[in-house]
Amino acid sequence: MRISQLAERARLPVATVKYYQREGLLHEGVLTAPNQAHYDESHLRRLELIRALVGPAGQSIASTRRILTAISDPPTSEYDLLGIAHQAVTPAPERMPATFARAERLLGHLGWDVSRCAPASVAALEEALLGLEAGGFFVEDEVLERYGRAMMGVAVDEVDDVPTDSPEAAARFVILGTVLVEPLLLSLRRLAQQTASAKRFG
Amino acid sequence: MRISQLAERARLPVATVKYYQREGLLHEGVLTAPNQAHYDESHLRRLELIRALVGPAGQSIASTRRILTAISDPPTSEYDLLGIAHQAVTPAPERMPATFARAERLLGHLGWDVSRCAPASVAALEEALLGLEAGGFFVEDEVLERYGRAMMGVAVDEVDDVPTDSPEAAARFVILGTVLVEPLLLSLRRLAQQTASAKRFG
Repeated sequence: MRISQLAERARLPVATVKYYQREGLLHEGVLTAPNQAHYDESHLRRLELIRALVGPAGQSIASTRRILTAISDPPTSEYDLLGIAHQAVTPAPERMPATFARAERLLGHLGWDVSRCAPASVAALEEALLGLEAGGFFVEDEVLERYGRAMMGVAVDEVDDVPTDSPEAAARFVILGTVLVEPLLLSLRRLAQQTASAKRFG
Repeated sequence: MRISQLAERARLPVATVKYYQREGLLHEGVLTAPNQAHYDESHLRRLELIRALVGPAGQSIASTRRILTAISDPPTSEYDLLGIAHQAVTPAPERMPATFARAERLLGHLGWDVSRCAPASVAALEEALLGLEAGGFFVEDEVLERYGRAMMGVAVDEVDDVPTDSPEAAARFVILGTVLVEPLLLSLRRLAQQTASAKRFG
């Protein structure tokens, strides 16, 4: 199909499709004439993926590029995959925290092996714990561990579900499962709070 | 203390403190001379809260203003509190989804009473589910319900912990517990995935 048809089927302006192409997010079409290219279903699927990443998942163009690269060129070991996937979607913190003391303490209580964790992810936990402190919102150790155990319950099932038939499929699953499921979890938490609150106070 | 001392203790530039004041986030000091105001600990605590909201919690100035208003002027019924708190921190979607069909279906499976839920929160769930579809990331009903049950486990404990001694304390708890705990949950999920992945594939 031509670029105009591709744009129409993807429900995007032609200028946006061209922009994604200039930014290296969308692969080139096959030239059928000096000034005309042919696009196929792979372009349409890629555009749908880009739209999901920059839309609901709230990723920047730079982060979307890293994610698409990681999906197209996945690491060969499944063990590396999650760290690489998380690196692609975790923005580097503006400045690294001076210590990871709070994060390491909590991970120690949870019995999680911090040496297996990506430094940027540990930094994100430290930042989140610093944020609670900065907001004057004191959370007891017991409650922090409760959050950790709840998230481990979610994560064990997710990791069990990672497909192992191809590295591409695994990378796609892990990356999209990270960025697209985060808004889902947060919206479910709020609705669960409202439902639980109606029961307690309603 | 003077504004310069207040700014120093809050580790913020004086210009930023003045900006928060102009934006209505920080209450005025007591005038001690035509051109000099006196600030106290309440200003410092407020600045720390603002910093946590616009920093780690990633709230905009407009959303921070709504949150601070809701904390200063909380609803009288605890039952209203969560909805109002969530409204304060939930950005109105750019356009409301045409239907809430996906969200209502999932909430029905979970047995949650959707009529007790804030429409903006149901819209956020619908958007999240649409985001999965748009990204070509198919999630089985069973897995969606697993996420819902995990979040209900988290939420029941959180709602049990809501202090009932004063509406201000309850509002502060609910709002900060929503916005400051979200980055904590997401970072814990990623670390849990890495830990679980190291066990499965490492």
